Amino acid sequence: MMKPVALSEIAAAHAKAVELGKHVVRMTTAAGSGHPSSALALSHIIVELMYRQMHYDPADPWNPGNDRLVLSIGHAVPIVYAAYADLGGAVGDANGERRLLGVDDLSGLRELNSVLDGHPNPAEGFPFFDAATGSLGQGLSVGAGLALAARLDGIAKRIFVIIGDGESREGQVWEAMDFIVDHRLTNVCAIFSCNGEGQAGKVSSQQSADAIAAKAAAFNWDMIRVDGHDPAQLSAAFGRLPSATRPVAIVARTVKGWGVDSMRTSNFHGKPMPSADLEKACAELDATGRQLGAACNGVWTPPPPARVTLRQAGGRIAIAPFEEACERAGMGAGLKAKKLATRAAYGVALVALGDADPRIVVLDGDVSNSTYADRFAQKHPDRFFECKIAEQNMISAAAGLAAGGKIPFAGSFAKFIARAVDQIDMAAISRANIKIVGSHAGVSLGADGPSQMALSDVAYFRSLTRADVGHGQIACRVFHPCDAISAYRCTELMANVKGLCYMRTHRPEASFVYPLTEPFEVGGCKQLRRGEHLTLVSCGYMLHDVLKAAERLADQGVRCNVFDAYTFPLDATPILAAARSAGGSILTVEDNYIGGLHAELAEAAAAAGGVRVVGLTASRIPKSAKTAEEVFEYVGVGLRQIVERATALAAR
Amino acid sequence: MMKPVALSEIAAAHAKAVELGKHVVRMTTAAGSGHPSSALALSHIIVELMYRQMHYDPADPWNPGNDRLVLSIGHAVPIVYAAYADLGGAVGDANGERRLLGVDDLSGLRELNSVLDGHPNPAEGFPFFDAATGSLGQGLSVGAGLALAARLDGIAKRIFVIIGDGESREGQVWEAMDFIVDHRLTNVCAIFSCNGEGQAGKVSSQQSADAIAAKAAAFNWDMIRVDGHDPAQLSAAFGRLPSATRPVAIVARTVKGWGVDSMRTSNFHGKPMPSADLEKACAELDATGRQLGAACNGVWTPPPPARVTLRQAGGRIAIAPFEEACERAGMGAGLKAKKLATRAAYGVALVALGDADPRIVVLDGDVSNSTYADRFAQKHPDRFFECKIAEQNMISAAAGLAAGGKIPFAGSFAKFIARAVDQIDMAAISRANIKIVGSHAGVSLGADGPSQMALSDVAYFRSLTRADVGHGQIACRVFHPCDAISAYRCTELMANVKGLCYMRTHRPEASFVYPLTEPFEVGGCKQLRRGEHLTLVSCGYMLHDVLKAAERLADQGVRCNVFDAYTFPLDATPILAAARSAGGSILTVEDNYIGGLHAELAEAAAAAGGVRVVGLTASRIPKSAKTAEEVFEYVGVGLRQIVERATALAAR
Repeated sequence: MMKPVALSEIAAAHAKAVELGKHVVRMTTAAGSGHPSSALALSHIIVELMYRQMHYDPADPWNPGNDRLVLSIGHAVPIVYAAYADLGGAVGDANGERRLLGVDDLSGLRELNSVLDGHPNPAEGFPFFDAATGSLGQGLSVGAGLALAARLDGIAKRIFVIIGDGESREGQVWEAMDFIVDHRLTNVCAIFSCNGEGQAGKVSSQQSADAIAAKAAAFNWDMIRVDGHDPAQLSAAFGRLPSATRPVAIVARTVKGWGVDSMRTSNFHGKPMPSADLEKACAELDATGRQLGAACNGVWTPPPPARVTLRQAGGRIAIAPFEEACERAGMGAGLKAKKLATRAAYGVALVALGDADPRIVVLDGDVSNSTYADRFAQKHPDRFFECKIAEQNMISAAAGLAAGGKIPFAGSFAKFIARAVDQIDMAAISRANIKIVGSHAGVSLGADGPSQMALSDVAYFRSLTRADVGHGQIACRVFHPCDAISAYRCTELMANVKGLCYMRTHRPEASFVYPLTEPFEVGGCKQLRRGEHLTLVSCGYMLHDVLKAAERLADQGVRCNVFDAYTFPLDATPILAAARSAGGSILTVEDNYIGGLHAELAEAAAAAGGVRVVGLTASRIPKSAKTAEEVFEYVGVGLRQIVERATALAAR
Repeated sequence: MMKPVALSEIAAAHAKAVELGKHVVRMTTAAGSGHPSSALALSHIIVELMYRQMHYDPADPWNPGNDRLVLSIGHAVPIVYAAYADLGGAVGDANGERRLLGVDDLSGLRELNSVLDGHPNPAEGFPFFDAATGSLGQGLSVGAGLALAARLDGIAKRIFVIIGDGESREGQVWEAMDFIVDHRLTNVCAIFSCNGEGQAGKVSSQQSADAIAAKAAAFNWDMIRVDGHDPAQLSAAFGRLPSATRPVAIVARTVKGWGVDSMRTSNFHGKPMPSADLEKACAELDATGRQLGAACNGVWTPPPPARVTLRQAGGRIAIAPFEEACERAGMGAGLKAKKLATRAAYGVALVALGDADPRIVVLDGDVSNSTYADRFAQKHPDRFFECKIAEQNMISAAAGLAAGGKIPFAGSFAKFIARAVDQIDMAAISRANIKIVGSHAGVSLGADGPSQMALSDVAYFRSLTRADVGHGQIACRVFHPCDAISAYRCTELMANVKGLCYMRTHRPEASFVYPLTEPFEVGGCKQLRRGEHLTLVSCGYMLHDVLKAAERLADQGVRCNVFDAYTFPLDATPILAAARSAGGSILTVEDNYIGGLHAELAEAAAAAGGVRVVGLTASRIPKSAKTAEEVFEYVGVGLRQIVERATALAAR
């Protein structure tokens, strides 16, 4: 139902765009940095969205009925800050200190104690946003995740995502376009702001408004072309959303530095107006407004959100006992043989989690028959989201689902999770509650070769484990279970830990190491063997070879402590204490590159003193071989090599 | 000029497809693993390309005039191995041991001592390929890089890239499609193999042949639809390439498991035929051949490559002295003030390298006015390739350029390099000679906030620095210069080191630390101060604060050694020796997350014993602040904190 827009409303829209534009210019000049020209290009789009189209309560950004805006082109954030402050939007913490923003706060942009961070980040106290953006191309995927969460909860809210033209070069944008069509997410609206200017030059003709429009059509979206500074056209375009049967992309021609003639030169990307030129810039905006007949007509309030009562899930999630869950999953044979792959145990745990709590959702990248996520897909099909071969989109969509109150487990081969490191970074910055599981990790993959083996994932994820994010939380926890029982329990742990978690699972079957009801905890490790000559530490699949090595060493009269370091960060105290009483030496063994277990223990030992640490890691790039054992040996972590190194170390 | 294909040639093509298909089935059964069904889908495409279309000499894969094939859908490699062995292709090393493959070699697929790795990898002795593939979606970018190299060298060779339909979901494929149009690389031909089947289910309708065809057209490619098992249609399609004015995409309908009825069930992805069913499978192939009128008509040899004489560049690259290069680059003021940002010095070095050697090429992601790559772009525009906001494509294109004999320097903000970790992995596996430079690294970026700051890059790249790739080479070398002189020299070092290198540069200006002619070497470190109480180690931008801290500590009577650890891997011997003579303690300081300098020294110290190492790293996720100093303090590496920690450590 398309209501024509009154001329007075058009005049008011221009007036508001000018008013917000002046705030943008002033706040970035005050900050001494920022991207005012990119922000000005969005003036009218933001006025139309945040004052007229979005059904939400600025004073209650936590209201689950609110429409949401994802600013994928994150550096344009000053225009959103301006609007939000003008509307008296709330900032702070839902459960803590909250207050209403005002335009006087805008001069605090980018200051240390301000919620107005340089790029969007809800975690710094700006809850209008759902995820940190600023690294480009990720917002449409986040929007898709928010839309999935809304649909699961039966909330008829809309998700608006603003994307830049230069930004649309990023392949992830097109992964999201596919995903949104696949999942029929007509509650997402993508707005492409086409101002024709990149950072180092004009955008490619492949990113022109014409090209983006043609691409959107080829990707099976409905597509509407508008002048991004024409309030009537914008209103008409958004007015078509309710009757759309396909997702809608609005391709808007915008002007970088709109309203400020001085900014409309090619090298004004990412530059604030110098103080001396500030008043001139504001005067140019006023003049632009006069030319357009800008005239305030009162105070605008956005339409209110839909009334929503959400059944509040919460509290600790407890899953069925391992034995029971395995039986139910048809893995009785493995249970009896006391042998199951950690990836299979993960699949069992996922189903048990899905049974236990409706917030659990699962995403997978076309490998669910390998990751065992297919079990969840069969049991809870409404909460399983096939992402196909597009890991960047998968991770950012998970961040969106988490922002929408779900607990997403996103998985693929650990090697392909590397496709999404930038997206994982951004999820960590958002403090997104996502759980990533990488299967077929390490060298134990064997014959497929290095293109399928994750060897640097441990180093990357471990790098996030010492960044404190407040409230007793750290940026990431890593889990690396050696058997089915620990894999099952670590999956449960991840569901209950706040924030980003990563777990590695492996391809081959592995013997049970632990009793069926063994408990596991964050920061913990387990001592499996005692001995007075040497301390061996491992995790994951290599732990089995380390246990075998310990037996061979014992035959030689070298008795070893053996520890399972199944999680980072790790409290190394028990390991160092055991090592001090056992000759003072530790040998770590892992089938990945450096930066993982060896680094973790070397850092602890070198700080504490008195304990020597030597590490066996994959010291060559692997290649294919018939068996995993041949590849272990090839890269230097074969059983024979472990025994040799340990023997030499114990002899010192 | 389109010659109709003789019926006898069609019959022969079918016969060859059947013959190769039988090899595929046999070799994967012998290996016990592999993806025969995906390979069979390419039977006719490979016959057409490797026996009829490509101008190349299988016995001389190093011939620079050869057309090239990039198998982006890497797991389908058995069909290429079969063809290459049938053609007596050469394997091994150009300068070492080489021999001609035969079909008897095929049963060695995936064995440790075989060049027939599980996925394509030229570095394992299969020089028909240019880059390792297997992680999907990267090959078209590699092809683009090969095409750029060919054009630079004036060689009229063609680059064929085969991409799977499910694979085309990966956003990088569409980055490459844009890039190839931007750079008018009509010498690249993309072949999409559309068999409709993914791994965990059918491909999405967004990846149907119809959808891919529509997308290719929207991306401004010419597009030809063919039956991928019809030799006449394939021949006609390729016949249109010479007259094409735009890049050509061939969208081919193929059949997964073509010719083997038993394989054409939905769960035959990535599975070899069981031994017991092998003969039946071969019989099915023969039957398929008979139905199609397959008939051998003699031995095929592919047409020979163009005669090419390449001026062989080589040898060590030496660049102009730093002072002279700065003057030429218009940086005399900084030279005089003895203050230049490391990113600026990098820009100067790039130009000097470009002047010194024609193999040097540069790629950038729309930030060349920030990375200073724009200086090279102005001086050597034919060797500068703007990649726009698409880092995945940039890195894989660099790998292609390296395979084509160039020395590519690829750069963006260090944070955005994280977008391409999977591609960097694959480049390392290929042993690609690419140099990656990440600017604006670390916390010193300041006000923009964490979405623009690389904090995990050091951990990731360091993870590759202990993987030995033979011939005295390691998988990656990392450089982290603190001033303009070291940045200039490290850039020169990178050009001369074989293999993947990564260098971090920073946003702010930095005072000169070194004399203008100071030499630098791989594995080295520099002692800048001597003292007997404590040893401080740092690198990059933080080194300056560490030098300031050392002064303050000296005022307090605590005299420190100071080391600049400007490269990984590092020979820590001099640092450990100095520490032992200075109280036995080391404090490392870096403005990134763990896994970098602290891990490097802790590993060395914990192995050697007798030296304590404590590390200051970024211990919180940063946020915006007016000044970089505020953010350093916020994350725990402010000057005050360094002095406090050092004081406490020296007092122990």
